[in-house]
Amino acid sequence: MDSKKVIISLDAMGGDHAPAAIIKGASLAIAKNPSLYFKIFGDSKLIQPWIDKCRNLKGSYELVHTDLYVPSDAKASDVVRNSKGTSMQLAIESVKNGEADTVISCGNTGGLMALSLFILRPIEGILRPAIIAPVPSLSEPCVFLDIGANSTVTEEHLLQFAIMGIAYCKATLNMENPKVGLFNIGSEATKGTELVQNAADLISQYPFINYQGFAEGDDLVKGKFNVIVTDGFTGNISLKTMEGTASYILEQTRKLFKGSFLAKIALFIFLALTFPRLLKLKKKVHPRHYNGAMLIGLQGISVKSHGASDKKAFAIAIDVAYRLVAGRVNEHIKHELEEINNLLQMNNEQE
Amino acid sequence: MDSKKVIISLDAMGGDHAPAAIIKGASLAIAKNPSLYFKIFGDSKLIQPWIDKCRNLKGSYELVHTDLYVPSDAKASDVVRNSKGTSMQLAIESVKNGEADTVISCGNTGGLMALSLFILRPIEGILRPAIIAPVPSLSEPCVFLDIGANSTVTEEHLLQFAIMGIAYCKATLNMENPKVGLFNIGSEATKGTELVQNAADLISQYPFINYQGFAEGDDLVKGKFNVIVTDGFTGNISLKTMEGTASYILEQTRKLFKGSFLAKIALFIFLALTFPRLLKLKKKVHPRHYNGAMLIGLQGISVKSHGASDKKAFAIAIDVAYRLVAGRVNEHIKHELEEINNLLQMNNEQE
Repeated sequence: MDSKKVIISLDAMGGDHAPAAIIKGASLAIAKNPSLYFKIFGDSKLIQPWIDKCRNLKGSYELVHTDLYVPSDAKASDVVRNSKGTSMQLAIESVKNGEADTVISCGNTGGLMALSLFILRPIEGILRPAIIAPVPSLSEPCVFLDIGANSTVTEEHLLQFAIMGIAYCKATLNMENPKVGLFNIGSEATKGTELVQNAADLISQYPFINYQGFAEGDDLVKGKFNVIVTDGFTGNISLKTMEGTASYILEQTRKLFKGSFLAKIALFIFLALTFPRLLKLKKKVHPRHYNGAMLIGLQGISVKSHGASDKKAFAIAIDVAYRLVAGRVNEHIKHELEEINNLLQMNNEQE
Repeated sequence: MDSKKVIISLDAMGGDHAPAAIIKGASLAIAKNPSLYFKIFGDSKLIQPWIDKCRNLKGSYELVHTDLYVPSDAKASDVVRNSKGTSMQLAIESVKNGEADTVISCGNTGGLMALSLFILRPIEGILRPAIIAPVPSLSEPCVFLDIGANSTVTEEHLLQFAIMGIAYCKATLNMENPKVGLFNIGSEATKGTELVQNAADLISQYPFINYQGFAEGDDLVKGKFNVIVTDGFTGNISLKTMEGTASYILEQTRKLFKGSFLAKIALFIFLALTFPRLLKLKKKVHPRHYNGAMLIGLQGISVKSHGASDKKAFAIAIDVAYRLVAGRVNEHIKHELEEINNLLQMNNEQE
C-alpha cells in the first residue's frame, strides 16, 4: 500500500442507509481522490455485496468483519461501556493504534462522541473537546462550535474553541486568517454575560486570532464570520433552531402544492427554467454539503456524518475527513496552543 | 368617552414608517374593534394630516403634542436619563398615571424596555420582567421568553417566566391550559445544565402549570409547546437565528429570479394558481402576524411593535395590546403567583 495514502476507517454499520451509502460514498470519493485508502468495519455478509458492485474500490480497501454494532438509540454512557468489538469501536481504535488517519461514522452521535473521547483522549493542553460543524452561509464559509459537547464553559474553554475553529478552517478550507466571532445578544461591546465579556477580553489579547467581536444569532448565516464560538447549550439550541426553521419553511411551501395539478405544472416550468441556478442553490444550502461535524480537540480525528447521509453526503464527509488529515488540523491546534503559551510566558517574564 | 373603552397610548414617533403607519394602523384597528380609544403622542404638525385622512378616528382619539422623541439608535441607559417629554416617555407615563390601559411603540426596543421598567415597575413578587414574543409555528400558537432582558437567570426566574408565558397565552389566545416547555439541548430528562435540571424540578412541582418537559431548538416552530421558556441569552440568539435563517432562505430564493424573464413568468403563473393558499401561508408566517412583543411582568402593559411595522402590522400590535388588557394578563400573573405562594405555605405547614 502506498505510504502516502490517507487511511480512513469507516464504521459501515451506522446511519439510516448503512452499509450501502457508506460503500457507495467511498466509491464516489475515491473516484475523485485516488489517494484514499479505506478500512471498512462491519458485517462482511452485508458489506461485501456492495463492495463488489463498486469496482473502483479494488485494491483500496480492507474489510474487517464484526457482527456487532452500536444501536442508534443507545445512550452515550452505555456505548462507552458496552461497545467492545462493535464496528464503531474497532474503527475508532484503529485511529488510536495508528493503523488509520481518521474515522467516520453515520451512527449514534452521542455514542461516537463519547467513545471517541474515551479512546482517543484530548490533545495535551485542550481542556474541553468540542463539537464543530460547518453551517450554510450567504457568502463566506462558516464553522460553528460548540454545538453540544459542553453545556457550561469558562472563558478559557471559549478561547480554545476559537483556536480549534481556526484550525478547522485552516485545515479544511485552506484559510489563512479566519475571522472569529463570539456569540452574544448584541454586537455592542458592553452587552451580554460576564462570561462572554471576559472571553472577549481574553480572545482579543492574542494577535494571531483574527477576532472580529460579537456575533448575533443571524450572523450564523450572514457570512460575516468564519468561526463562531459559543457554549454547547446555546450552540446546540441555535443550530436546532436553524434546522427547525428551514424545515418549517420547506413544509409550509410543500403544503402549497397539495391537490393543485395546475400549480404543480407551473412550478415544473419554473423549476425547469431556473434549473442551473436551482442546482447551484441546492448545492449551497443542502445539508449534504454541510456534512462533516467532528469532536475537535482529540488526539485522533473522528468525523460524524449525518445519520441520514446518502452516498453523496457520505462522500462529502470523506472529503472533509481527508482534508482534516491532509491539512493537519491537530498540528494547527498544537501550534496555536504553543503560541498562547509563549505569549503567556513572555508576559510573565516581563512582569 | 365611553368608560368601557380600552384606552391605548401610541408613541406616534417611533419606527421606520412613523407617524403614517401608526395612525393608519390605528384607523384599521378601530374599524374592526370600535371599543378602542387612542391617546396619540408626538409632533402634531406631522401627525394631524394623517389623522385627518383617517375619518373613522374621529371622536376616538386625543392628540398630545410634543416636539421630542427618542432617537432609534440611542442607548437604553441614555433613554432612561434623557427621555423626559418625549413621545415615548409621555405615552408610558400615561399608563403609569392610569390615563391609559396600555402603550405601544415601534421605537427603540432597548429604550422602550428600559423606560417601561423604570416607569411602570415590576409587579409585586416578580423578580425579573422578561421580553416575550409570539413565534410562527406549524400548528398551535407558541410564545417564547425571555428573548433578551435577562442574560443570566436562576430557576426561580425561569419558573416565573413560565407563569408569565401562561398568562400571555390565557389573555391573548384564550387558552385554558397552555403546554409549557423548557429549552434544553435534548429532550431526555438527564440532559443539560444544572440550571435547567433544577428549573424542571421546580416547575413540575406546580400542578397548575401544564409542564410538558424539555423543548429543543426545533420545537420553536413545531407547535408542540405553547410556551417555551429560556434565559435571555439563549432566547435572543435562538430568535435571531430563526429570523436570520428565514431571511437567508428568502434571499437565496430571490437570487433565482435575477435576470430570467421566463422564470418570472412561470413563477407568476404558479403564484396566480396557488394564490388562496399562498395568502393563507403568508398570513401564517409573515412577521407582521407575529407582532406584539412585550416586557411582561410590569405593573402596566407595554407593547413593542416591529420597527419596520406597516399599518397592518401595527393594527395587529394594537389587537395584541387590546387582548392583553381585555384578557387581563396581569391578573393572571398575580393569580398564579398567589397559587405558588399558597402551595409553598401549605408545604411549610405540613413540614
